[in-house]
Amino acid sequence: MKRIGAQTLEFTAPPTVLGHGAVGGRKESEGPLAADFHQTFDDTRLQTDSWEKAEAQLQKEAVSVALAGAGLGAGEVDMIFAGDLLNQCISSTFGLLEYQIPFLGQYGACSTMAQTLLMAGIMVDCGAARRAAAVTSSHFCSAERQFRTPLEYGAQRTPTAQWTATASGCAIVGQGGRVKLLHGLAGKVVDLGVKDPSNMGAAMAPAAADSIYRFLEDTGTAPKDYDGIFTGDLGYVGSTLLLDMLRDNGMELSGVHNDCGLMLFDRQRQDVHAGGSGCGCSASVLCGHLLNRMERGELKNILFCATGALMSTTSQQQGEAIPGVCHIVHLGI
Amino acid sequence: MKRIGAQTLEFTAPPTVLGHGAVGGRKESEGPLAADFHQTFDDTRLQTDSWEKAEAQLQKEAVSVALAGAGLGAGEVDMIFAGDLLNQCISSTFGLLEYQIPFLGQYGACSTMAQTLLMAGIMVDCGAARRAAAVTSSHFCSAERQFRTPLEYGAQRTPTAQWTATASGCAIVGQGGRVKLLHGLAGKVVDLGVKDPSNMGAAMAPAAADSIYRFLEDTGTAPKDYDGIFTGDLGYVGSTLLLDMLRDNGMELSGVHNDCGLMLFDRQRQDVHAGGSGCGCSASVLCGHLLNRMERGELKNILFCATGALMSTTSQQQGEAIPGVCHIVHLGI
Repeated sequence: MKRIGAQTLEFTAPPTVLGHGAVGGRKESEGPLAADFHQTFDDTRLQTDSWEKAEAQLQKEAVSVALAGAGLGAGEVDMIFAGDLLNQCISSTFGLLEYQIPFLGQYGACSTMAQTLLMAGIMVDCGAARRAAAVTSSHFCSAERQFRTPLEYGAQRTPTAQWTATASGCAIVGQGGRVKLLHGLAGKVVDLGVKDPSNMGAAMAPAAADSIYRFLEDTGTAPKDYDGIFTGDLGYVGSTLLLDMLRDNGMELSGVHNDCGLMLFDRQRQDVHAGGSGCGCSASVLCGHLLNRMERGELKNILFCATGALMSTTSQQQGEAIPGVCHIVHLGI
Repeated sequence: MKRIGAQTLEFTAPPTVLGHGAVGGRKESEGPLAADFHQTFDDTRLQTDSWEKAEAQLQKEAVSVALAGAGLGAGEVDMIFAGDLLNQCISSTFGLLEYQIPFLGQYGACSTMAQTLLMAGIMVDCGAARRAAAVTSSHFCSAERQFRTPLEYGAQRTPTAQWTATASGCAIVGQGGRVKLLHGLAGKVVDLGVKDPSNMGAAMAPAAADSIYRFLEDTGTAPKDYDGIFTGDLGYVGSTLLLDMLRDNGMELSGVHNDCGLMLFDRQRQDVHAGGSGCGCSASVLCGHLLNRMERGELKNILFCATGALMSTTSQQQGEAIPGVCHIVHLGI
């Protein structure tokens, strides 16, 4: 590992993606990225008896697909970095229990896929793990129940609201694969005072702007040096704000930027308002669509910039603002 | 970093503790380790308007003490690993916001101090961070409100129940200090089917037994090679089970073992039933009492084995068992 600039890490023995898995629910299987999922499930409960257990099952399936793709057994993975949106990250705990891989729970809200991938990459680069897994998930129903209103209310959603993906993504990191982890950045928590829980994109955009700006500064690169800069999940509102904020600082991202929350669903046809969200959104877009395209050589050099809103229902009820964070992993072939 | 045996890591450029801070509430200031706290607060709310904000404040204070001890400013710390028991780890997010240190949220329940210290150590060992902070907290009132019953109920506690510490501990890791991080182990999640949320010690003891057994096997050491093996927080019930389980496997820990949950409070006099618990319990015992003793040369070689119960109120209500995890850091001078 080498530090460059103020906040960026350079992988000196670049770890690679050995296997990856993206699984999703029915709505995800009806979206523009349907063909990129390794597996989708029509049954919201995945034959379990609760949404929480279904979400745990999603993680289990994503890891299973990724291990199979890597041609590895669970016993050959030295550490697993996992987290999710549910209180005390129970999807990860229960979903991954039977793999018996040393477990390091992570909490980065919807930034978790970048955070777990960054951690897994560092462990492999420095030899703390021969192979490490990164996984996260979200489930529309378990998230609505926990953070918002009972589904049965049929509550009206605001135009700025995003739709939590029912999905999971997993990447197995080790030496010898095609797609390399080249750089990484752990983000700072940024809070510009946005308090509207129906507008998470706006709350997270400042963190994305901060991390992307610092990463490009540290590496001495410009947006045009990348085939794509993918945030997740700012949605329509947050993406617009991100581009505006960076433009105000002399950085033009349009043309090269896309957002996982805008890619996973067809916003108009699928009625998801400002776009997709949830840990599983950017995780499944990365571990399905983006890594598939990289392996086919269609994308050679990308920034994966997952963003998280670090609030809880308690902090909301106590009138706190919604701090955001954005972690970045630079992937290349 | 070097891997030894099946699961253990050896720090090859041993990181050290540059500064540490332990802060606590009134009950902690009345316990046997009172003199080891850097700061204690009589006001349960630490002059904030909620228990959750008070817990966030505890983390802020612990980091402040640790930074001062290390003679460092927040800007000189490259990463902070933090987590807590509150939903979505809001004590960490809000408590650490103003330090503006790149933030990697961790979730290991009461094992969080060992997990964050392990992560901080790896980052410094491999050069991903020049200095990294590890911090966690718990607060009796915020934990009771979230996990159990409103305090106003005055609910009767079972004899196996533990008392959540109102405390926080922080360690700043870097090169050049006296106390070294020598080895580490990331634990597996172990679930032997214990379902009683009033008996967390029993739920976590199997994980502690598993991690300690593997660590001693991997390093080819015996309990008597250490000045102390400190678990946290199994309390009285879990500690008894741990010793029994290891004895069944031919390993005798009595004489060298103690538990942070048994050290922080006087069980009889302070009416804490089976002992202390909560992320802040083992964190403040390590970052106060144990590191103080190491710096004075009274302890030269210890294992810090923090244990976590990876459940939520939802998993409980859905009838799931309580899986445990135990991470280990080997410290020496």
